Amino acid sequence: MSDTAKRLARLRDKMAETGTDLVALGPGSHMQWLVGFHPHGDERPCLLLVSRTAETFLMPALNAEGSREETDISFHTWSDDEGPNKALDAALEAVAATGARQVVLDETMRADFALLLLGALPDAKHAFTAETVGALRMRKDESEYAAIKMNAGIADRAMQKAFAAIRPGMTEKELAAEIRAHFASEGAVTQFTIVGGGPNGAFPHHQTGERKLEEGDAIVIDIGGRKNGFPSDITRMAVVGRPPEGYGQIHTIVENAVRAALGAARPGVKAKEVDAAARKVISDAGYGEYFVHRTGHGLGIEGHEPPYITATSETVLEEGMVFSIEPGIYLPGRFGIRLEEIVILREDGPEILSSLPRDLFVVRM
Amino acid sequence: MSDTAKRLARLRDKMAETGTDLVALGPGSHMQWLVGFHPHGDERPCLLLVSRTAETFLMPALNAEGSREETDISFHTWSDDEGPNKALDAALEAVAATGARQVVLDETMRADFALLLLGALPDAKHAFTAETVGALRMRKDESEYAAIKMNAGIADRAMQKAFAAIRPGMTEKELAAEIRAHFASEGAVTQFTIVGGGPNGAFPHHQTGERKLEEGDAIVIDIGGRKNGFPSDITRMAVVGRPPEGYGQIHTIVENAVRAALGAARPGVKAKEVDAAARKVISDAGYGEYFVHRTGHGLGIEGHEPPYITATSETVLEEGMVFSIEPGIYLPGRFGIRLEEIVILREDGPEILSSLPRDLFVVRM
Repeated sequence: MSDTAKRLARLRDKMAETGTDLVALGPGSHMQWLVGFHPHGDERPCLLLVSRTAETFLMPALNAEGSREETDISFHTWSDDEGPNKALDAALEAVAATGARQVVLDETMRADFALLLLGALPDAKHAFTAETVGALRMRKDESEYAAIKMNAGIADRAMQKAFAAIRPGMTEKELAAEIRAHFASEGAVTQFTIVGGGPNGAFPHHQTGERKLEEGDAIVIDIGGRKNGFPSDITRMAVVGRPPEGYGQIHTIVENAVRAALGAARPGVKAKEVDAAARKVISDAGYGEYFVHRTGHGLGIEGHEPPYITATSETVLEEGMVFSIEPGIYLPGRFGIRLEEIVILREDGPEILSSLPRDLFVVRM
Repeated sequence: MSDTAKRLARLRDKMAETGTDLVALGPGSHMQWLVGFHPHGDERPCLLLVSRTAETFLMPALNAEGSREETDISFHTWSDDEGPNKALDAALEAVAATGARQVVLDETMRADFALLLLGALPDAKHAFTAETVGALRMRKDESEYAAIKMNAGIADRAMQKAFAAIRPGMTEKELAAEIRAHFASEGAVTQFTIVGGGPNGAFPHHQTGERKLEEGDAIVIDIGGRKNGFPSDITRMAVVGRPPEGYGQIHTIVENAVRAALGAARPGVKAKEVDAAARKVISDAGYGEYFVHRTGHGLGIEGHEPPYITATSETVLEEGMVFSIEPGIYLPGRFGIRLEEIVILREDGPEILSSLPRDLFVVRM
């Protein structure tokens, strides 16, 4: 049985459990996971429609021939001059879903794709993929683990390259260029390079810029690449010379928050309990208001995917889930500290994929 | 008056014309055009809401501080643990749009963003941006023209680099790497490199692969980069040694189709008339069924944007519109030919942005 056939069977079990009549996926990672590819995604509506009994594609004619090599699933094609409506009706007919009442939509698809489909199914209620495709994608198999672990190794080496390259007077962008060059040297495509020096580190999603790294700057380095269809994601801290006033104490609090979350993460535990464990350490130390984001996010085909490790998530963690643990403290005008691990949850707890210690890297002056 | 203030005023004129109460844009190129930036786009709902009288952002708290540096528009922030619903209600209140009945949605936003907003406005009908933001974005100003023209020059040089690099025995991917290296050498980021050799050229959106270029292969080379916020897009043809049987005749037909479309494109003419002009040349020559796509697409912040030059588009072309003219003929199992120009429509007709002739480039053996 092919991976696609297995995953379709598992999806239909979930559809039965949740009372779902139709699942509609756009060109993106849900489709990639289910059928092993996705067509070129642009403004032309393209949907994979999966009912309880059959599946078909709504496919722009332009992409049909190229996609034909990738899958045996039937296509309902439409050309630029006729538009997608007729082909969509035929596709819904073909999978016996014209009367679908409970539809699961790929939440990442374009708004116009989703509203085209809902327009063709006026009686349908919609949900997103959390209970179906999303639930299945959270648990990784060993081939997915191997690809993610390999990427984590590349990210570790890119981080070490960054540490070695830091010089006072270089800009954040220059340091980011070193990181990108390392990812490229291992055949990975850089996905993001957040280099936040000094006060810029206090913006969790700082846009790496022209600010020069100076003596006394704590630097948040949060980087990710992508190879063989999977991403990496790691955050470590460096400092140029002497750390800023108060740095060591805050680093220890964040480190303890990471450890608390690692200790809390076990199969059967809710995601919010892991978030609470990290948050409690930081709140108890008096910095609760400076930990402005969730503790983590899942990672698979996408760099951010379920499970989300938030204060309110009722998701029960299971063996095989891969997610980040990345508490942080951000002190406006001063510095930020974030430490991030990607873990896979094993029977007895999280296995950390990185081999790099979370210690502050000090650039000697 | 800032660009943003000017564009907001023009948008509100369009809203009045079209009876639109609220325009909602996601992090993407519509937002970029209107306010000059867009926040980090991820799974966290982020919307720019523009009513007839006011504008505000629904903003994930995590991105607020970084985005604060980019705009003076107010933020309604929400944190990971509280979720977006309350902040969205407050944002709608702030722009006096809780009773909006006619809403324009950014068609490119994620389905879950769109359905979150429509869920908060149960009486609203929706449209997409074609008559409002889309209509405004089609006409480029001189600063946009300058950026697109500059990118066209880079793409010309990348194409010439590709021509010079072609050797029999090299793979499509190896040729694509030369093109990417050239874009990078001029500070541009490669957006796509379609290299379709021999029969692969008959797939209009061929995924560049490991096939080796051989003597007698016609090669479709369709490339684009991005610099200073704008893209490029050009397609030319090359051949290794002697062209395949029948090549010259088909190339001439496609060239004549390009010329016919260039001749038809004038301010006041409908987009479908330009498509018809190209299509007629190809159909009259007996190859109508092998021209499987539209004649062109607009180009601006996005590589594909309105106006679309299709068989059914009623869009009236105006001075300042930028679009592609790219007819093609695709002969399955043999070869494909596409020739693509990007033009800006001037009072007296199209100005071609490329300086490269559309002749077949022959790699001498």
